[in-house]
Amino acid sequence: MATDARGDQTVRSPAGDTALSSWRDGPAKRAILQFVATTCGDGRSDPVPPEDRVAVFDNDGTLWCEKPMPIQLDFVLRRLVEMAADDPSLRGRQPWKAAAEHDGVWLGTAMTEYYAGDDTKVRQLLAGVVAAHEGLSVEEFEASSGAFLRAAQHPTLGRRYLACAYAPMIELLDHLWANGFTCYIVSGGGRDFMRPISQEVYGIPRERVIGSALTLTYVGDEAGGTIRRTATPEFLDDGPEKPVRIWTRTGRRPLMAAGNSNGDVEMLDFTRHGDKPFLRLLVLHDDADREFDYVSGAERALQRAGTEGWTVMSMKHDWATVF
Amino acid sequence: MATDARGDQTVRSPAGDTALSSWRDGPAKRAILQFVATTCGDGRSDPVPPEDRVAVFDNDGTLWCEKPMPIQLDFVLRRLVEMAADDPSLRGRQPWKAAAEHDGVWLGTAMTEYYAGDDTKVRQLLAGVVAAHEGLSVEEFEASSGAFLRAAQHPTLGRRYLACAYAPMIELLDHLWANGFTCYIVSGGGRDFMRPISQEVYGIPRERVIGSALTLTYVGDEAGGTIRRTATPEFLDDGPEKPVRIWTRTGRRPLMAAGNSNGDVEMLDFTRHGDKPFLRLLVLHDDADREFDYVSGAERALQRAGTEGWTVMSMKHDWATVF
Repeated sequence: MATDARGDQTVRSPAGDTALSSWRDGPAKRAILQFVATTCGDGRSDPVPPEDRVAVFDNDGTLWCEKPMPIQLDFVLRRLVEMAADDPSLRGRQPWKAAAEHDGVWLGTAMTEYYAGDDTKVRQLLAGVVAAHEGLSVEEFEASSGAFLRAAQHPTLGRRYLACAYAPMIELLDHLWANGFTCYIVSGGGRDFMRPISQEVYGIPRERVIGSALTLTYVGDEAGGTIRRTATPEFLDDGPEKPVRIWTRTGRRPLMAAGNSNGDVEMLDFTRHGDKPFLRLLVLHDDADREFDYVSGAERALQRAGTEGWTVMSMKHDWATVF
Repeated sequence: MATDARGDQTVRSPAGDTALSSWRDGPAKRAILQFVATTCGDGRSDPVPPEDRVAVFDNDGTLWCEKPMPIQLDFVLRRLVEMAADDPSLRGRQPWKAAAEHDGVWLGTAMTEYYAGDDTKVRQLLAGVVAAHEGLSVEEFEASSGAFLRAAQHPTLGRRYLACAYAPMIELLDHLWANGFTCYIVSGGGRDFMRPISQEVYGIPRERVIGSALTLTYVGDEAGGTIRRTATPEFLDDGPEKPVRIWTRTGRRPLMAAGNSNGDVEMLDFTRHGDKPFLRLLVLHDDADREFDYVSGAERALQRAGTEGWTVMSMKHDWATVF
């Protein structure tokens, strides 16, 4: 696991045949090793300058588990339960009602309908998400999300949420790091939700987390002022917004992108060069024994992987270990 | 001048008595050297972890010259002249009219009235600014701004715009870099305007430029898609928006901030800690012989410097050389 944010001091990962030991030999592993070797100049090509070695990673379902629900949704639902307990008028309204009644069907339907193109329930859900921590300072929110992430357990996998990151992907991050890449998280989830643990879990420092955001406001005072969360979304970092946010943050087009769902299609499309090596990776969740087996929400991405030559990483076949 | 973006490989700047040789001895230079020494652990205190050594710099009037007009305004006015030449209907409308007629009085009045609290003309001007490059891809815009900045001359100083950066501030950036700081530009000007030259001029890579932004849109195609500029502002990185954008980008509260105008007050206020060293710097333009002598637009900042103990850097007295 990466523990240093600099990315350019020492080589931590083995190179060549011993790299990516948590990956089984196969086309995915070979494509990654070949891409990294080419980027670094493998004798046949000039190396890409280190500042252009940008790699971007979706988070939920790509770097860590997103089933039975995204980890951040669990965090928010617990807060909605608290809110409904404090304010009975919320108990008849969605999504507080579903949260208070632990109504997994309503929540599951919201996601299924969203992936099918109907965002009615997801919009109700998002209204709850943005209201859940309205008015908190960014430090207060971070203390809350960090404490949750460090304590909470996954509901079915028998491990802490922080242990739900995929070992092969962490190894891939390390291998890129060791080869001069700068890696970013580009999540549809909340930027400020992940920041307190991104260094610890992925070796990615907080300033390299790109994700959805609420509008923040600064209120000055004698002690340096406070930045607070509002209930107004600034942007949802999903779909065509991902390339925009990558550009906004880095000013570069990435060489490598990894995703797992339809919301990652534009990010992977954007990862393409006429004059440099590039690699697009898609995690396929096909391992019911070790994680989950689903393609819901990934249909368009999987189809595009086929037509565009993206590298599909089968959890079942390509990963020697999952966690 | 800094030429490497990493910030943590080798020490380039001399330490101790030979550091900041373009600064005259005085309270400003001593405050900077003392602050850096304390941050790094000077024997009396523990060093601040390198990841927390964040320093933020306003650009116009702080890192480079902003008179007789901000450099970006010159860039935009030239484009407005072109637009008015192509489209006669624009010639009667502000700001195209002022641009085409080289009406410095209208432009000067816009700025003077803005600083006095009336933003009517500045809003007209901004409408022209956002329309000037509408529809360009981010690569096209960057090629245009980069070419302008590399070719254009300052109207009165007898030097290229790229040579209008202040040598003492570049030396300060280098000194911070050599002591493990990560420096960011936090400009009221356009982020994408400065990115093509930030590394070359300041040693600050494009991904560490924070500035005002227009809304961008991604349009996919078979060749990786294109990100284009719209005419809709995303945010103006000025005043209370500066702390918000610093947090958004870095997830940290800076240890050091440098500014020169009222738009920097909140950023300097935000740069305050209860448990770490911190330093707030304000450039005072008081050198009509070597640069310019003005306090317009900085009245509130200068007043606050007095009450809050900010360190005022007199261009005339503290800088041995300006450019």
